[in-house]
Amino acid sequence: MKKLPYLVSLAAVWLSIAVASAQESPVDYVNPFIGTTNYGTTNPGAICPQGMMSVVPFNVMGGKSVGNKIDKDSQWWSTPYEHTNAYFTGFSHVNLSGVGCPELGSLLLMPTTGKLNVDYLQYGSAYKDEKATPGYYSNILTKYGIKNEVSATLRTGITRFTFPKGESNILLNLGEGLTNETGATVRFVNEREIEGTKLLGTFCYNPQAVFPIYFVMRINKVPRARGYWKKMRPMTVEAQWDNTSGKNKLYTAYTKEMSGDDIGTWFTFDTEEGETIEVSMGVSFVSIANARLNLDKEQAGKGFDQIRAEARSMWEDDLSRILVEGGTKEQKTVFYTAMYHLLIHPNILQDVNGQYPAMEGSEILTTKGNRYTVFSLWDTYRNVHQLMTLLFPDRQLDMVRTMVDMYKEHGWLPKWELYGRETLTMEGDPSIPVIVDTWMKGLRDFDVQAAYEAMYKSATTPGKDNLMRPDIDDYIAKGYVPLTEQYDNSVSHALEYYIADYALSRFAQALGKKEDAKLFYDRSLGYKHYYSKEFGTLRPILPDGTFYSPFDPMEGANFAPSPGFHEGNSWNYTFYVPHDIAGLTCLMGGKKKFVDKLQKVFDEGLYDPANEPDIAYPYLFSYFKGEEWRTQKQVKRLLAEYFTDQPNGIPGNDDTGTMSAWAIFSMIGLYPDCPGVPDYTLTTPTFDKVTIRLDPKYYKEKELVITAVRPGNDADLIKEVKLNGKKHAGYRISHDELVHAGTMEFILK
Amino acid sequence: MKKLPYLVSLAAVWLSIAVASAQESPVDYVNPFIGTTNYGTTNPGAICPQGMMSVVPFNVMGGKSVGNKIDKDSQWWSTPYEHTNAYFTGFSHVNLSGVGCPELGSLLLMPTTGKLNVDYLQYGSAYKDEKATPGYYSNILTKYGIKNEVSATLRTGITRFTFPKGESNILLNLGEGLTNETGATVRFVNEREIEGTKLLGTFCYNPQAVFPIYFVMRINKVPRARGYWKKMRPMTVEAQWDNTSGKNKLYTAYTKEMSGDDIGTWFTFDTEEGETIEVSMGVSFVSIANARLNLDKEQAGKGFDQIRAEARSMWEDDLSRILVEGGTKEQKTVFYTAMYHLLIHPNILQDVNGQYPAMEGSEILTTKGNRYTVFSLWDTYRNVHQLMTLLFPDRQLDMVRTMVDMYKEHGWLPKWELYGRETLTMEGDPSIPVIVDTWMKGLRDFDVQAAYEAMYKSATTPGKDNLMRPDIDDYIAKGYVPLTEQYDNSVSHALEYYIADYALSRFAQALGKKEDAKLFYDRSLGYKHYYSKEFGTLRPILPDGTFYSPFDPMEGANFAPSPGFHEGNSWNYTFYVPHDIAGLTCLMGGKKKFVDKLQKVFDEGLYDPANEPDIAYPYLFSYFKGEEWRTQKQVKRLLAEYFTDQPNGIPGNDDTGTMSAWAIFSMIGLYPDCPGVPDYTLTTPTFDKVTIRLDPKYYKEKELVITAVRPGNDADLIKEVKLNGKKHAGYRISHDELVHAGTMEFILK
Repeated sequence: MKKLPYLVSLAAVWLSIAVASAQESPVDYVNPFIGTTNYGTTNPGAICPQGMMSVVPFNVMGGKSVGNKIDKDSQWWSTPYEHTNAYFTGFSHVNLSGVGCPELGSLLLMPTTGKLNVDYLQYGSAYKDEKATPGYYSNILTKYGIKNEVSATLRTGITRFTFPKGESNILLNLGEGLTNETGATVRFVNEREIEGTKLLGTFCYNPQAVFPIYFVMRINKVPRARGYWKKMRPMTVEAQWDNTSGKNKLYTAYTKEMSGDDIGTWFTFDTEEGETIEVSMGVSFVSIANARLNLDKEQAGKGFDQIRAEARSMWEDDLSRILVEGGTKEQKTVFYTAMYHLLIHPNILQDVNGQYPAMEGSEILTTKGNRYTVFSLWDTYRNVHQLMTLLFPDRQLDMVRTMVDMYKEHGWLPKWELYGRETLTMEGDPSIPVIVDTWMKGLRDFDVQAAYEAMYKSATTPGKDNLMRPDIDDYIAKGYVPLTEQYDNSVSHALEYYIADYALSRFAQALGKKEDAKLFYDRSLGYKHYYSKEFGTLRPILPDGTFYSPFDPMEGANFAPSPGFHEGNSWNYTFYVPHDIAGLTCLMGGKKKFVDKLQKVFDEGLYDPANEPDIAYPYLFSYFKGEEWRTQKQVKRLLAEYFTDQPNGIPGNDDTGTMSAWAIFSMIGLYPDCPGVPDYTLTTPTFDKVTIRLDPKYYKEKELVITAVRPGNDADLIKEVKLNGKKHAGYRISHDELVHAGTMEFILK
Repeated sequence: MKKLPYLVSLAAVWLSIAVASAQESPVDYVNPFIGTTNYGTTNPGAICPQGMMSVVPFNVMGGKSVGNKIDKDSQWWSTPYEHTNAYFTGFSHVNLSGVGCPELGSLLLMPTTGKLNVDYLQYGSAYKDEKATPGYYSNILTKYGIKNEVSATLRTGITRFTFPKGESNILLNLGEGLTNETGATVRFVNEREIEGTKLLGTFCYNPQAVFPIYFVMRINKVPRARGYWKKMRPMTVEAQWDNTSGKNKLYTAYTKEMSGDDIGTWFTFDTEEGETIEVSMGVSFVSIANARLNLDKEQAGKGFDQIRAEARSMWEDDLSRILVEGGTKEQKTVFYTAMYHLLIHPNILQDVNGQYPAMEGSEILTTKGNRYTVFSLWDTYRNVHQLMTLLFPDRQLDMVRTMVDMYKEHGWLPKWELYGRETLTMEGDPSIPVIVDTWMKGLRDFDVQAAYEAMYKSATTPGKDNLMRPDIDDYIAKGYVPLTEQYDNSVSHALEYYIADYALSRFAQALGKKEDAKLFYDRSLGYKHYYSKEFGTLRPILPDGTFYSPFDPMEGANFAPSPGFHEGNSWNYTFYVPHDIAGLTCLMGGKKKFVDKLQKVFDEGLYDPANEPDIAYPYLFSYFKGEEWRTQKQVKRLLAEYFTDQPNGIPGNDDTGTMSAWAIFSMIGLYPDCPGVPDYTLTTPTFDKVTIRLDPKYYKEKELVITAVRPGNDADLIKEVKLNGKKHAGYRISHDELVHAGTMEFILK
């Protein structure tokens, strides 16, 4: 195993800065504000690639009375930052990017001036002059005249406040956050350092998926005064003697352990005009000691500017895995911002000493490589891991190793893992296609035996004991999952199982397990039960074997609840049988009917670009000779329409990089439309030249250069594809062909 | 320094039990239910002498709807147990006995049966068959058929539950308690052990006097299931997705750190009929590690029965310091129960390794002797420490050393110290008479130099910097404290300063500091300013030097607010110049007027037996030859009227043993009516024979035997007193005379 080259030398840092200043670098194209409204749920905070820590401006608290349009508690809300909001209440430490459920976003660090006030409805501020680049964010608080700047290392955050002259305060609010879990404990280690624990969890309103975050925070100046606050429970009669009843009580002398639902720590300083104070935050999911170790190791002897430079340098290295030429500035911005969003999750979980909390257990284990967390697999199995395999095979291997280790620790591969807890969000068995896809592409340095065992377990264990597939009994007995409750997502469940079982069958075949291969292949074709000739779509089946009635394939659009389908309607799922497009075509009555129906989906607005089930649809045209132009046309349209350089420039939740990976693949001219199958469908590249630096440890060729030869600006259809100078037959390509090609030339027309 | 002989050998334990069963022992006379109603604020829980730990049935929560008359939150309420209440909600660990402000009384341990329910309004139970003896309490929960038994070591508690057959639960409620502070953190160490911290403090509604208690709890059976609960904050819109909103959320899988305002830990068992489960609780005010160490050392290899036997044995040893003969069973019950209450506070603070939290600091220090805490000095300086000096001089010396160490750590001697925090409850400078009194009685093995320095500091530091005497400036300049607010207790403050300064003047004199002696003696006479010839009482003085008008010396009776006087009216304070009875007599116009006026206090119900300022009044008659019979008559009457063997058998707050010490002294025939002056006034002993075992390390005589020779049952006045067979002149005796007498014979008439 190989450590990621995260610890760049100081020389390299300054070199990269020097280079960056001389010419536009990929980092300069990144606009972290893209996706920060329109439910993109990304944020402009500071983070390192695959970093545990992010430091994010928090502006979703306070409600309409303080000038915000959206409040975290006023709806189902899942991101610490909303671009159209106006009221800043601090920087949250450790956040999720591009998810659809509220979680994390706590340890809220806020500067103020004047008399100490610990009520966020009063201490928050409007802000201006926001700036964000990878690893850096800044704004100015108009109420206080304070400049805020934040940066991050992998596991620590750093904030630089520039204060006006007078009395200044730094608050750490441990009571609020995006998470709906409550409870924290904190204590002063000395005048400049605190340590503590805060509870997080209840992701997607799952009340049991709870976990602690441990932190150590240091300030580089001794405060004039310090203490805690806590919102006291209201008293009745006793309120006449205790004036803290129901209020925020300020603790002015007590400095030992403080616990409670709604607590915080405050520091007061006398500051000169323009005086800067830096605050460092180290975190860990193992222990306070490890949070301190992370802080000591990653910030040792470094100030804000160096940390910022190193964060930028890490992004420079990672984003440079693909260099694009040609295209508009907006296209490059969209592209590199998508790359930036791709590299946020999964993120590392282990501390600098390699320790991490075991999956669903209380043990503390140690990893040699990187242990990853935040696996939103129902999303990412579609394209994120495929892109990691191509660009960052070392990370993808560590992700697969992590997944297999989770099985060893917990007994199950992950579904939607969050900091060691299985949140069981969304459905299916998405680890199977991820691991099979990786193995099929030649990355096999993981415990393949255990991986197969894990897949076999979830594919065969009876439902009552099956965490991954609780409704497997009918699936096995009948070949499908019947609808047993009005909105039970039964069809969506089964479709995921079909895809997973297809991948598993190919894996079994490759491992010489012929019987298993046949068993799972046969199961993967069960989708046919759902095909309704009457509607020409998939349709839920009742327990008695008849179709669900009355049925409307439109029911469930725009995230409305839908019988049998999860976050979509029948149209969003009907073509989601990527492993058997031929079989689906037969069911539908042949190529023409298939293509016409798929074209109708686009023509009649039945396609939802904002969610995963149908995002591979545009590529399905290319399974049919002569129809590939439809793929190329739709992809170009969708990119132009939904992926822009504006804050609303992602069509919906980025889904931990899944939407971004769709854009990246689409812009370089290929897409892995069937998870688990190591092939790509080709489409028109956005750029004239794309240079992919391949990792020599995994791929023989040093790079893959994709070029597009355009006879004119409006030439957006593929006339011919050449691999290493030789004509390539068809519009699909295997991973093996791709990484050995050296060059791939698209001759456009 | 010498360790207290707390660790008795096992042989000694069994021996003492054998002896106890053969004849009635002092322990058998103790009735821990005395003082548990009528605001006595004692409790029937299990505790060892001067122990940190007490395990007390908690029945002041739930309110009228569940059958309680009194609820901790429905009024100013200061004790975990009220005898007339009916609804039991667990055993509280570490409690205060006989105080007037709510504090401690947390770590509520409750057994239930059936389906887990963590709402105390539902899980509480009525109870029957209460039994309490020193070191042991038991009851039966009628709702569940569970038998509860508790016992304690010095720093740990043990509870034995006897369950019926079926599903049984053990709950530890960390959200509630007598304390008004909130916040706790807890985590599972393993299936049978938890550790955590809970915040305590805000004694007497002082919001800053906060401190943590650390605990480790073990159960001797592995539970079938375990987890936490937490009262969740209410949600608005999000409540539709999170059904824990505003409810007690049960955590069924999470076992790492849990923090919050209102949390708890639960364990569920399958129990057989009559199955016992034991729960051990170790605490510390230093750290969780020390709590575990205390538990390991004090309960190593011991079960409930042995711990109970050892606790009883410790009480046996301590209560046997005085053996009384004659008197009624009720009188012996009152006497030994008073002794029991005397030996609860101050209690030890240090852990088994000697560590304790520094006074008002964050340091952890180590003591060789015992470090004491819970100094309710405005009460106890009057008689508790005098009694400790006589009976337990080793402990009294450690208490004085503790007080001087507090000065070294914090810069001030204590006023009302509670677990390392100065709560500043009540007024005056009460450490001075305590330390001087001890020194005057020959216990001088403490840092006398530092003690004098500390006293001098509080007696001379200007008010703005004077924590003990914030209103000292006028006191020094004018000789009195003027009334500056309607209810500012100014006269009470000054009266305490006079007494303290008198003691200090005698101390200075003894140390050869003649100028200091004169200075403080002169100040001690300033009380004369307050004497109003018009009313014949003390009367507040306004800042302009005139008396406060309109004035009513009755104003302030029954704890009503009173201008100038704290918890009393002018009558309760007018004679409180014990250091200058002669001077006060002159002011009042001579002996007859003094005696008549004092007699009027008793005749007209102006005497308050329920609070400290006037409790020495009955003894003042004995300053006047020929009037001593009045002392003897009043003391006998007061003992009979206010000290009984019933739950209401203490006239008011026991005040950490002060009321009990009054009864003990009065029943053995002597009383230290002027704190700081090593003399006693004599009165008629209750018993025929009192044998006081004197500590040979401090006193030459092995024992002091006090006998009363009664010619008839109604002979209750003293005719003659003989010391060691020789006639004693007068009705006062010095400490030196007393401890060297060997025998003191009261010939009654």
